[in-house]
Amino acid sequence: MATLFETELREQPAVLARLLREGRSAAEAIAERLRGRKLSFAVLAARGSSDNAARYAQYLLGIQNGLVAALATPSAFTHYGARPSLEGALVLGISQSGQSPDIVEVLREGRRQGAFTLALTNETDSPLASAAEAVFPLLAGQEHAVAATKTYTAQTLAVAMLSAALKGGEQPWSELADVPDLAASAIDRSAAPARTAERLREHSRLVVVGRGYNLSTAFEITLKVKETTGVMADGYSSADFLHGPKAILERNLPVLAVAPGPRVFDDLDSLVRLTREKGAPLVVISDRRELLEQADIAMPLPAMPEWLSPIVAVIPGQLFALGLSLARGMQPDAPPGLSKVTHTR
Amino acid sequence: MATLFETELREQPAVLARLLREGRSAAEAIAERLRGRKLSFAVLAARGSSDNAARYAQYLLGIQNGLVAALATPSAFTHYGARPSLEGALVLGISQSGQSPDIVEVLREGRRQGAFTLALTNETDSPLASAAEAVFPLLAGQEHAVAATKTYTAQTLAVAMLSAALKGGEQPWSELADVPDLAASAIDRSAAPARTAERLREHSRLVVVGRGYNLSTAFEITLKVKETTGVMADGYSSADFLHGPKAILERNLPVLAVAPGPRVFDDLDSLVRLTREKGAPLVVISDRRELLEQADIAMPLPAMPEWLSPIVAVIPGQLFALGLSLARGMQPDAPPGLSKVTHTR
Repeated sequence: MATLFETELREQPAVLARLLREGRSAAEAIAERLRGRKLSFAVLAARGSSDNAARYAQYLLGIQNGLVAALATPSAFTHYGARPSLEGALVLGISQSGQSPDIVEVLREGRRQGAFTLALTNETDSPLASAAEAVFPLLAGQEHAVAATKTYTAQTLAVAMLSAALKGGEQPWSELADVPDLAASAIDRSAAPARTAERLREHSRLVVVGRGYNLSTAFEITLKVKETTGVMADGYSSADFLHGPKAILERNLPVLAVAPGPRVFDDLDSLVRLTREKGAPLVVISDRRELLEQADIAMPLPAMPEWLSPIVAVIPGQLFALGLSLARGMQPDAPPGLSKVTHTR
Repeated sequence: MATLFETELREQPAVLARLLREGRSAAEAIAERLRGRKLSFAVLAARGSSDNAARYAQYLLGIQNGLVAALATPSAFTHYGARPSLEGALVLGISQSGQSPDIVEVLREGRRQGAFTLALTNETDSPLASAAEAVFPLLAGQEHAVAATKTYTAQTLAVAMLSAALKGGEQPWSELADVPDLAASAIDRSAAPARTAERLREHSRLVVVGRGYNLSTAFEITLKVKETTGVMADGYSSADFLHGPKAILERNLPVLAVAPGPRVFDDLDSLVRLTREKGAPLVVISDRRELLEQADIAMPLPAMPEWLSPIVAVIPGQLFALGLSLARGMQPDAPPGLSKVTHTR
């Protein structure tokens, strides 16, 4: 019988299609209200998987919408009573459950200061939704597995829809329309290679690297692997990796590279080469043949516009985590010590 | 013969004293110019150790100076040509060498847009210094070891001096005056326990946790351990750790907790308890006796104001990295594959 984790993973194309179909008018209404304000910057508050979606939003808002976005430091608000000026800010809270008190507090402070506060959540009657001036619902249906899959891709799609609505025009929407099929294709192509993750069963460590938009993807795959396999995965920008952490590379340390094309990052390619030189196992998620050919486990992606690739490129990573989890005799639905909703202050 | 790494580590009290003595007027002149502008937010551009100093600046500016600070995403500028609006921003570049092209590019863009650009660097004739409107020199003397020690603590002190100058008044300066002695005391107290790091010699993994101001410290210790020992260290906010990564805890995974008092973070304390329950080795850097008593390797800190604790609390972590490096037969001065200056785009 399929695990909840796999069932929800496979629901993703349908969840993404529903959000696209039913969420566009909400995204455009929110964008309309945002255009009425003079935004100076954005503050993004989130934890766990949602924080990885926030990382994607940080790149998207900066590159597509000209807006500097800061990942919030919630403890500065809750533990230190910081009240930084949020004048002219978009304060965006991202949370599947909408429950975490520290994220709610950042939005409350934003609202007190008159900033535009927006909740991106699967639970429209949650404390986060109540705290915000506007809510963008994920419409992902209940998520039962502790490790998020469909709510993560729904969050990243929601962020892309908001960015598209802010930018205006039909072009981004016509690209967005392909996302559900691209997600289905990623599942089809990667399901079989993911089952060969058992080759890495004996390794207790994994380095995951991405770059640019897909730094978010590297971090989210890292988290999925940690949650479901007990392996200590460590995610990096390949640029940061070269500034020090590179020193840990050795034969017994597998590397997973997230490299959707067509953009080539030299530091990521050189890290792939270095992994091969060390003789360490290499996993590649990419649509670039020259990278896939070097991999022990090659997870091919369909070609797609780069700005949307994080929504799709995470899926082979979820499948890889599932394959490795089962190969290591773990229960992917019930990670040791975790529960679905985590309350942090 | 002492390694360069240890020599420079032990220079820190003197380096900090010099920067305090000779840098105050520069910090106050910069603060005066900043007060003349209406700042909306800050953007901090850095990589490697300097990025950990930027993380400290993010908390400090938010809590002490009411300024939201975003850690920049340099690749958005260099690879994607993003030109986000930097109107009203303080754009701060932090780099020991001032060489990394991507960091320089963020400052150039800030200057093009008329933002106030500031370089915090040890090299006043570097490209970063040339790109910035103002320069705050670290005065740390040349650093020879690849893994930064004295330039990291000088960067954190410089950030604290800028925050103090922006805040105004004598109180922060009278607290800052104690930092060099506190650093010397941290070296004295931790040198012996750090030598017992050999107990962890056989472990290839280490989790490092901190919270609030000292998230920066946890990240910097993580980097030091990676650079000098080959151990895969992974740094977290203890709040983020509970949102998923907690699943990897087990008997064979040592945990290092950075917890300068007096503020108590429940999630950090509960993580310490959990480590003990799992029977995993525990290293503690703290001035709280109840935490130190639970540790296998206890590294006691002197008491100090929390806002300054990151400058001092990193030092036992540097000593721990040194002890572990030597115990594992590594060369702390010459990490495999690294060089002192890394050029990333």
